[in-house]
Amino acid sequence: MKIETNDTIVALATAHGSAAIAVIRLSGPSAFKVVEKNLQSKNLQKKQIHNKASHTIHFGLIVQDDVIIDEVLVSVFKGPNSFTGQDSVEVSCHGSPFIQQQIIQLFLAAGARHAQPGEFTLRAFLNGKFDLSQAEAVADLIASNSAISHQVAMQQMRGGFSNKIKLLRENLINFASLIELELDFSEEDVEFANRTDLKNLIHSINNVVQKLISSFELGNVIKNGIPVAIVGKPNAGKSTLLNVLLEDDRAIVSEIAGTTRDTIEDEITIDGVLFRFIDTAGIRTTSDVVEQIGVNKAYEAMQKSAIIIYLFDSHEISSGDLKNEIEMLKEHIGTSQLVIVANKIDTESIDDLKKEFSNFPDIIFISAKTHDHIKDLKLKLLELFDARTVTATDTIVTNARHANSLKNVSNALQKVLDGLDKNIVADLLALDIRYALDEIGSLTGEVTNEDLLTNIFSKFCIGK
Amino acid sequence: MKIETNDTIVALATAHGSAAIAVIRLSGPSAFKVVEKNLQSKNLQKKQIHNKASHTIHFGLIVQDDVIIDEVLVSVFKGPNSFTGQDSVEVSCHGSPFIQQQIIQLFLAAGARHAQPGEFTLRAFLNGKFDLSQAEAVADLIASNSAISHQVAMQQMRGGFSNKIKLLRENLINFASLIELELDFSEEDVEFANRTDLKNLIHSINNVVQKLISSFELGNVIKNGIPVAIVGKPNAGKSTLLNVLLEDDRAIVSEIAGTTRDTIEDEITIDGVLFRFIDTAGIRTTSDVVEQIGVNKAYEAMQKSAIIIYLFDSHEISSGDLKNEIEMLKEHIGTSQLVIVANKIDTESIDDLKKEFSNFPDIIFISAKTHDHIKDLKLKLLELFDARTVTATDTIVTNARHANSLKNVSNALQKVLDGLDKNIVADLLALDIRYALDEIGSLTGEVTNEDLLTNIFSKFCIGK
Repeated sequence: MKIETNDTIVALATAHGSAAIAVIRLSGPSAFKVVEKNLQSKNLQKKQIHNKASHTIHFGLIVQDDVIIDEVLVSVFKGPNSFTGQDSVEVSCHGSPFIQQQIIQLFLAAGARHAQPGEFTLRAFLNGKFDLSQAEAVADLIASNSAISHQVAMQQMRGGFSNKIKLLRENLINFASLIELELDFSEEDVEFANRTDLKNLIHSINNVVQKLISSFELGNVIKNGIPVAIVGKPNAGKSTLLNVLLEDDRAIVSEIAGTTRDTIEDEITIDGVLFRFIDTAGIRTTSDVVEQIGVNKAYEAMQKSAIIIYLFDSHEISSGDLKNEIEMLKEHIGTSQLVIVANKIDTESIDDLKKEFSNFPDIIFISAKTHDHIKDLKLKLLELFDARTVTATDTIVTNARHANSLKNVSNALQKVLDGLDKNIVADLLALDIRYALDEIGSLTGEVTNEDLLTNIFSKFCIGK
Repeated sequence: MKIETNDTIVALATAHGSAAIAVIRLSGPSAFKVVEKNLQSKNLQKKQIHNKASHTIHFGLIVQDDVIIDEVLVSVFKGPNSFTGQDSVEVSCHGSPFIQQQIIQLFLAAGARHAQPGEFTLRAFLNGKFDLSQAEAVADLIASNSAISHQVAMQQMRGGFSNKIKLLRENLINFASLIELELDFSEEDVEFANRTDLKNLIHSINNVVQKLISSFELGNVIKNGIPVAIVGKPNAGKSTLLNVLLEDDRAIVSEIAGTTRDTIEDEITIDGVLFRFIDTAGIRTTSDVVEQIGVNKAYEAMQKSAIIIYLFDSHEISSGDLKNEIEMLKEHIGTSQLVIVANKIDTESIDDLKKEFSNFPDIIFISAKTHDHIKDLKLKLLELFDARTVTATDTIVTNARHANSLKNVSNALQKVLDGLDKNIVADLLALDIRYALDEIGSLTGEVTNEDLLTNIFSKFCIGK
């Protein structure tokens, strides 16, 4: 794709479907003209908007060949004080898909072009409204479906990540300038850039970069949900438990009329944290050789989980059995955290059960059938997540592109360090630093190219 | 439902789901206060909007307990110059369902109440922004899915229907006043209201009412689509033809990226007119007694169609066979219009076929398989619709409530005429006229009650 910013783009900015209103968005030098071609006032006179103040709203009729398509509100945004930095218009029309389509068609006929996915945000980026990682956060923000993924995206959009990177970059640029100054005086063999200071700077930059890289594991979990597996013997009540957890969540959501959530089967949000349940049907300890193949496959899935819930029927398993089961399980769970849950407590006293399983003080006793103590399990899941720790103001990398770029930055920094150790000449050192600077710059978009931009923004929705 | 208009209501006004932006709408005396409780400026100071000019847009942050929920644009509309006539705010946020939900929750906590379906439009009606039939047209407009249903709804929303009704009502009110004046002078036996003029007026009103009532048949067809049946022998290619028509339509729609249409199976739009295909699988002429039962049932469905397409395989049927088939069919089609279509012309020359079926000059020759001449058939369907006639400025009743009300009006008018014929006393005549006036008033909402309003607006979507 050739990136074009001098034409006028149009797209539906709100979700598809029937609703009270829909918003059609235009951006570009002819945005006002395109709308004016089809806009009339209440008394069917041509209506102008280009002479209106920015950030004002005007009633008008969208008219095609004397046929009124809709009564609309037109919001005028004048560049550079708009989202994209260009002259922009938002037309708020009645939320009929037919009307949306008619109006967009009129604007296309009047000289606008259909916006590509993310093209409004791309223009905002190219006009310096924000840097690349902030632009990427816009898409994450729209996709966010839990309080934490939302906060991480918001932190990134507000520049948290960018500021950290920019500071590092500025420090390094200072050194690069000093070293390049040395090149001008290369015959005099002077060192403007103190090599020890440079080495210290690179180390401290690399520290930050390493922290960011390692935050990606957490960031990924935040973005995609914490993977949880429920394992146990066939009749332990795994699917009942999963259904109870899911139902509870749906019930909370449906209390809030007028909103829906794009729910994915097997995802629940507890106190703003997203948990994603991995299908591990069939996992159980067995000594049967034939069964073992299937079980091994299941163990693999289990190892992808951050948390494993081992569920057992409190009537069927003795304390001794449980010990064996848990020991066998622990061989396979890797770094995942284990939660032991006793189910079907509805017919027995918890005190008796607690006595029986006193060797396992952390057991959570529930009844999936009667929903008893499900809350305890939820609190435990949250607690395990908190143990992995995150505060909303932490800078956490959630974007795979950023994680990869940061690894490249780290490698480039290592190259600079190697050069310093080998005492290489200033012009080679300058090259290595420039390379590292480029890698850092690609994170925030100071250094970029059309392919990269096209790739990033194609993942956005149309109209953003 | 008790109708309450003194509190502040909030709802999502755009369609559900992820998108670039979503709009949350508030209306009521505390609309500004509710938003201000959660609104901050760029530098995280409290931000006020109640002191801004109407129809202006302001950037702000929605903040909850120091956590930024979103960067938003806030549109300020001051009563009475808003849609509802009350102070209103539209918050344009990022189109994440999670964010929408968070913001609505904040507004609810700040004292707003969830809007009922249609409650914004209800408030607009109660504040005299438009009459009831115009309010009802808003819902029709949003639901409109073809150029004609759209135009009829727009015409109604713009007051076409109301103006017609209001004029009738005013004339009748004049007479009612004169007659009621007679009551004041009842002992003097004067007639201020000329009985002949009154009779003429009632007749001319009734003429208009009758026309409106009979327009409902067409209005209903426009709103719900023109019913079309495709009939013919089992291998004539009925389902292939239907698929071709549907595919063509979908293809046109999908060309317009960024828009979708809520398509219902078996509906197509030709040049802005909606055609709805009725399932008539199994209709064919037969002499088999057992088969006849099923066929009869199919004939019933056929009689519900405005247009019947008789499709035949041009290789299988001779001109003589066709004559018999058509004659048999004509006994069952009632007032429906018949279109005879010869299919599978791809392997023969049209000229030969035209010669063979020269007794049927109106036959349309197509190939459903190769899509040849499908356009001719579409033009024919449109032509038959045009024969039933409608222009966009005609006042057409599309609303069943209006049709029923109009029938009541007609009965009430007949009662007045009967009274006039019987020369009944002025006070009884006045009663009959008042009754007719009430019935007319209920059409446009001059006369109304809470049950009626609740019933009408409950059919709206939330947020409108």
